[in-house]
Amino acid sequence: MATQAAFLAGFPQLAAQQGRDRAGTGAPARVSVAAIGSAKVGGGARVGVKAGGGAEAVARRGVRCRASLIEPDGGRLVDLVAPEEGGRRAALRREAAALPHRVRLGRVEKEWVHVLSEGWASPLQGFMREHEFLQALHFNSIRGADGRMVNMSVPIVLSLGDAQRRAIQADGATRVALVDDRDRTIAVLSDIEIYKHNKEERIARTWGTTAPGLPYVEEAITNAGDWLIGGDLEVIEPIKYNDGLDQYRLSPAQLREEFARRNADAVFAFQLRNPVHNGHALLMTDTRKRLLEMGYKNPVLLLHPLGGFTKADDVPLSWRMKQHEKVLEEGVLNPESTVVAIFPSPMYYAGPTEVQWHAKARINAGANFYIVGRDPAGMSHPTEKRDLYNADHGKKVLSMAPGLERLNILPFRVCHPS
Amino acid sequence: MATQAAFLAGFPQLAAQQGRDRAGTGAPARVSVAAIGSAKVGGGARVGVKAGGGAEAVARRGVRCRASLIEPDGGRLVDLVAPEEGGRRAALRREAAALPHRVRLGRVEKEWVHVLSEGWASPLQGFMREHEFLQALHFNSIRGADGRMVNMSVPIVLSLGDAQRRAIQADGATRVALVDDRDRTIAVLSDIEIYKHNKEERIARTWGTTAPGLPYVEEAITNAGDWLIGGDLEVIEPIKYNDGLDQYRLSPAQLREEFARRNADAVFAFQLRNPVHNGHALLMTDTRKRLLEMGYKNPVLLLHPLGGFTKADDVPLSWRMKQHEKVLEEGVLNPESTVVAIFPSPMYYAGPTEVQWHAKARINAGANFYIVGRDPAGMSHPTEKRDLYNADHGKKVLSMAPGLERLNILPFRVCHPS
Repeated sequence: MATQAAFLAGFPQLAAQQGRDRAGTGAPARVSVAAIGSAKVGGGARVGVKAGGGAEAVARRGVRCRASLIEPDGGRLVDLVAPEEGGRRAALRREAAALPHRVRLGRVEKEWVHVLSEGWASPLQGFMREHEFLQALHFNSIRGADGRMVNMSVPIVLSLGDAQRRAIQADGATRVALVDDRDRTIAVLSDIEIYKHNKEERIARTWGTTAPGLPYVEEAITNAGDWLIGGDLEVIEPIKYNDGLDQYRLSPAQLREEFARRNADAVFAFQLRNPVHNGHALLMTDTRKRLLEMGYKNPVLLLHPLGGFTKADDVPLSWRMKQHEKVLEEGVLNPESTVVAIFPSPMYYAGPTEVQWHAKARINAGANFYIVGRDPAGMSHPTEKRDLYNADHGKKVLSMAPGLERLNILPFRVCHPS
Repeated sequence: MATQAAFLAGFPQLAAQQGRDRAGTGAPARVSVAAIGSAKVGGGARVGVKAGGGAEAVARRGVRCRASLIEPDGGRLVDLVAPEEGGRRAALRREAAALPHRVRLGRVEKEWVHVLSEGWASPLQGFMREHEFLQALHFNSIRGADGRMVNMSVPIVLSLGDAQRRAIQADGATRVALVDDRDRTIAVLSDIEIYKHNKEERIARTWGTTAPGLPYVEEAITNAGDWLIGGDLEVIEPIKYNDGLDQYRLSPAQLREEFARRNADAVFAFQLRNPVHNGHALLMTDTRKRLLEMGYKNPVLLLHPLGGFTKADDVPLSWRMKQHEKVLEEGVLNPESTVVAIFPSPMYYAGPTEVQWHAKARINAGANFYIVGRDPAGMSHPTEKRDLYNADHGKKVLSMAPGLERLNILPFRVCHPS
């Protein structure tokens, strides 16, 4: 039986992080299983930290968060889908149809509408305004309404062409409708702010290169408009894809419900965009075993393949999902302690910048442990014969990122099951 | 007579920042004149905040900080010059001469040795190790030993060629001597760490472009080594230039002494790299008047031209200093309430990224107000017909930067003296 010390020795980043936790940031402790775990390691006895005496916290727009799971960024899980109750959905649909300005969403932008609508990017309330965009670019984090920093490393922005920009500004419009590629109304953006889209600066600061051939840049930036439009988003109805995989697209609120239903006292997330191989499966089984040895009663794995835009040579989502299903069917992973779901974000391939987004979004879905591998969100340099990022930087940047102090980072390592 | 409300109306950023101060960051308040100013605006009565009952705080290596000035980043002003007392200077000189590995400093690197040695970059203790470099690149700020974020937006690094890197690592050396262009020993770097110098990524994340023609890049990066060497710096003796201007090169400790001697209760810093024109002078006079009206008894101006590397078409330092002297002689600025000194940093021309460094360094010198103009540290795009940065971004980024919450940002504006 491994001891707690051995557990920490296996996860040196975690040990280091717990040292950092002890040093403190001057901010009051938040409710998190991670904090409970730290206390156990330090003193042996379980120190329960509960908010509101075990009562459920009710977030804006009715999403309930169980106090036993890690708190979402900003304290509440954002939900931007118009509720059916009270006629709000029907009213919004009518309002949207009547708006004179309609901004067309590309594939990637629609995926971001999905991401924003379900609160993966909590506390963001919509596409970024300039002050949020600048903070994301320069600080990979944003100061929330309560004065604390939340992590936000990738810009979530909507571009706009010059002609439409001029038309909107000439009208003094404060709201626009967002429509899909078949002109169907998807959402409304309110209290809008339009600002310059300096593509070169955005690309350089996000990817650390401006070399041609970055997949996300070619898909969603190169031909995008020279302006960005931010504002508060309200989505008419939940985003669906009708590709036979929608049942896997669980929102952060649904995932939190599922973890609570299973009485999870630790949730460890594993992000991937490739098929699961045997090493992955061993890692995940081993991680659960170690968390049990550490004293957690029911650690649950969130096996969380990315479902949005990926580059052409990545394995398509439908194949990956079939393979993930099979791994569960064959009992390689225990279905009792595993939740397979799709993370709806598009892929930036921005290495150390993007891995922070991948981790932050999982906090909002209730995960307090995050497994990080070698060169996360990395790729080959588009024009040089080398990897774009140093393979260790993702893990290092993640362990130091503002706003991710509450998350336990578990470095991916080769497992030797006893 | 202008009221306090009119003062704030004149400085909308200050009003916004005071709102932010009130929101709080969860961190305990630090000793700063800015905090006192805020309290006055809010409640009318002066709320004095003092550390240690008015006693002087003694920093590491003997630098004393008057508690009435804004606290340096990290709580203590770093001083990396070997003291003459106790024979440390002579001993270090002998030790350095005997070290087998000698890293040659270029002009810019020697300027950084100067900057680091006097604590402008407090709490940095030397050239950045990788964890500091990564935090500067990704977050423009570094988590200090006490868990708090201090601002640090530009990498302060020393490069190393591959042959020397291999020789140092083959020996297992932990210390190297730093020598100038005439092989004179300047300093020792201890407990060294060597890591890759990914120039493209460094440039992209610092400047937001990789276009050829950036002055600092051409001067200090393009032909630099492919490795970086970080460590704790100890400098044998104060850096001097013997150009007739050394008397203006006051260290942060000397500036703090001077402000204390003048009983300054507010220090407002003005960074410039060009000659002072009449608009500047009016602005500075007007700022002092407004600070007096706000209730400060003796606001002192730190007129602080940058003295390190600048691009070829900037006005040379010696001409600028002559012109600054003249402005004081002619009484355009009041010598009683003005301190002219040279800021020894080289110029990055990195706009919103660099302006944070300019502001942060002045906190360490005792300034609690910072005047920021249009397009600070900006320049023309090196290959396109436009400015490299949006002229408003510097001011905006500065007002949101982690670690600069204690500094009052005063936007440069056209003055209408009554």
